[in-house]
Amino acid sequence: MNFDLKELYEKFNEYKGMNLSLNMARGKPGKAQLDISDDILNPDLLGDFKTEDGTEVRNYGVLDGIKECKRLYSEILEVPEKNLIVFGNASLTIMYDYISQCMVFGAGDKPWASQESIKFLCPVPGYDRHFAILEHFGIEMINIPMNAEGPDMDLIDEYIKDEKVKGIICVPMYANPNGLTYSENVIKRFASLKPAAKDFRVIWDNAYCVHHLSDDADKFYNIFEYADKNGTEDFFIEVASTSKISFPGAGISVMAASDANIAAVKKRMTIQTIGYDKINQLRHAAYFKNLDGIKEHMKKHAEIIKPKFDAVLDTLDKYFADAPGYKWTEPKGGYFISFNVPKGGAKRTVELCKEAGVTLTSAGATYPYHNDPDDSNIRIAPTFPDLDELKLATEILCVCAKIAELENK
Amino acid sequence: MNFDLKELYEKFNEYKGMNLSLNMARGKPGKAQLDISDDILNPDLLGDFKTEDGTEVRNYGVLDGIKECKRLYSEILEVPEKNLIVFGNASLTIMYDYISQCMVFGAGDKPWASQESIKFLCPVPGYDRHFAILEHFGIEMINIPMNAEGPDMDLIDEYIKDEKVKGIICVPMYANPNGLTYSENVIKRFASLKPAAKDFRVIWDNAYCVHHLSDDADKFYNIFEYADKNGTEDFFIEVASTSKISFPGAGISVMAASDANIAAVKKRMTIQTIGYDKINQLRHAAYFKNLDGIKEHMKKHAEIIKPKFDAVLDTLDKYFADAPGYKWTEPKGGYFISFNVPKGGAKRTVELCKEAGVTLTSAGATYPYHNDPDDSNIRIAPTFPDLDELKLATEILCVCAKIAELENK
Repeated sequence: MNFDLKELYEKFNEYKGMNLSLNMARGKPGKAQLDISDDILNPDLLGDFKTEDGTEVRNYGVLDGIKECKRLYSEILEVPEKNLIVFGNASLTIMYDYISQCMVFGAGDKPWASQESIKFLCPVPGYDRHFAILEHFGIEMINIPMNAEGPDMDLIDEYIKDEKVKGIICVPMYANPNGLTYSENVIKRFASLKPAAKDFRVIWDNAYCVHHLSDDADKFYNIFEYADKNGTEDFFIEVASTSKISFPGAGISVMAASDANIAAVKKRMTIQTIGYDKINQLRHAAYFKNLDGIKEHMKKHAEIIKPKFDAVLDTLDKYFADAPGYKWTEPKGGYFISFNVPKGGAKRTVELCKEAGVTLTSAGATYPYHNDPDDSNIRIAPTFPDLDELKLATEILCVCAKIAELENK
Repeated sequence: MNFDLKELYEKFNEYKGMNLSLNMARGKPGKAQLDISDDILNPDLLGDFKTEDGTEVRNYGVLDGIKECKRLYSEILEVPEKNLIVFGNASLTIMYDYISQCMVFGAGDKPWASQESIKFLCPVPGYDRHFAILEHFGIEMINIPMNAEGPDMDLIDEYIKDEKVKGIICVPMYANPNGLTYSENVIKRFASLKPAAKDFRVIWDNAYCVHHLSDDADKFYNIFEYADKNGTEDFFIEVASTSKISFPGAGISVMAASDANIAAVKKRMTIQTIGYDKINQLRHAAYFKNLDGIKEHMKKHAEIIKPKFDAVLDTLDKYFADAPGYKWTEPKGGYFISFNVPKGGAKRTVELCKEAGVTLTSAGATYPYHNDPDDSNIRIAPTFPDLDELKLATEILCVCAKIAELENK
């Protein structure tokens, strides 16, 4: 495509005149996706309110989750039930609470809060809420560039020679925001990390591990299968949830970890709670039953959102195929597309989009401290808008990106 | 009643031979109480899944709770909606997280974790899970005796001259375990506390504020009404929940606090969560509607549990009316009866009960560090067993208490 700044401005003003309010900012399911889970709320699923071992779900008890939910997540994450804890409605809270626990009580060594200037490695671009947790606790963040196979593992090996480096936070499958899945080689490198810190932890956020867009899916690698062989299983704290399987904010979440880490977390939990919502746990277990039930349900999601991903990719392709400086990912799952504009253009693009009525995740949000050193990365969340809205929003994004590029010249 | 140790042992052995398994240990509703709330699970209550302001409850969003739930708790606790945050399924977690926040980030001064040997005042007997939180964080606990009006306020005034004393944790209405409600005079004393610590906080656990056993109820005092007059509103962190209104572990919980405290908690929450389970919030709000709905519902609970409280009290009276060394409370609400046996007899009583098949809260649990200096206090939780079981369990408790007393002579 040929672009002329004057024509682009005209187009831009045309969009502005439409008084649009389109949103591609957050990884939120659209209404059609919510509807497919409504049967989870059918009280018949709860039967006599008893779990298979006779536990009354309407009363207190069961700290670490009902048996049925553990079995379900044991199938999904391929870990034994004893290495799982079922939590409340958010894996974000699991991660926050775990980091908080490490700050106050440590991770097998002195409390992190009592060790000065500790650091975490952050594959970038990454998830803004991960970075927010680390910043909140005053943990210094170090960017680790991502390539097509995953984070730069050589760089990670270098950094972890410093015992102040306490961990890594990452999304190993259909990563937020680039949608890529770590290769088996990268998984093996993670499983054989040799950090100087004795209290090293990898927050392994497997938020999208069953969120395939089609049958042409990436392969799920169980990190514990590899870590067990190297004796590194204590490094990994894996989390997942049904937030984008059933209902965001009203689902269940889960942690998978080594025996020692499960014990340390339960020790804290006995003080923090009597137990999580077992009625909601039973509802989910009874509805999904097993991994096959989950897979079937995820196909319904894919039918709704695959066309949205395709629409974004087609539009990007239409505008910027072979255009220098523009790059984007073509994920096989997850919730995001990572879109790079020519250096120095992301903030301006997002600003122009806003002016034209299209809300995007703020530029820089995919980097620690909101600081994208190239000012280039934009996260596109295609799931929430209707297909028609999405197409229009992506057109506007492309026009704004091109304006930003040309203004910079 | 006359007691003969030989006859008591015979009776005890008779009970033992019955192979009973009775439980008066925890404040759990009985099955009949759970049943009265089942309609909360009717999906019709959720309508089109929208709140009155149009928020979709099946999707992400709304950090601090839906409007309907805030209005409901605004009526219950008599505080403005802006001073409320609706949380997840447990006020215990609200309290844990708040103390944790104070440890790491402080309460308007330096982090508590960075201030050495900080202390909390604990009205005794009290709630074991409160004490567990403080012990977990290494906060020293100081016993404050309770009298009929509430904690010994003169002693509290004395202790808070020490700036290491950072707060008080207590249940002001139908207290756990003695069921008594602080008098207006005590409320006024709390509201006019003048602690040396600038970062002083009272955890005001109003777990039982609507849990009356009959129309002859204690009066609810809104601590903020009194605190506002003295400018002490920042001292108070009030919590409550529907755990013993709807379903334990599957209800909603709430914090009431000053503008400054609400802002500080929300600042942490924006990092810890995207929001709590709004489907469950809407379910509760739509079912109860308002304070009248809550009151009506609590009457149904009272009808079920009042006879249980009466059965315990009648039995205690039958055995120990005017017996020296025995004392118990006659609560007008809440979930517990506090039973004092002659000094040095509580542990032995609980041990004997266990042998005879009756589980009680462990002796000492109602004191910090599980240390009842008189070894005298036993918490009776009458709600969970059936009425017949409860009568038998209380008979056994009385026999065991008397054996313990006579063995000690």
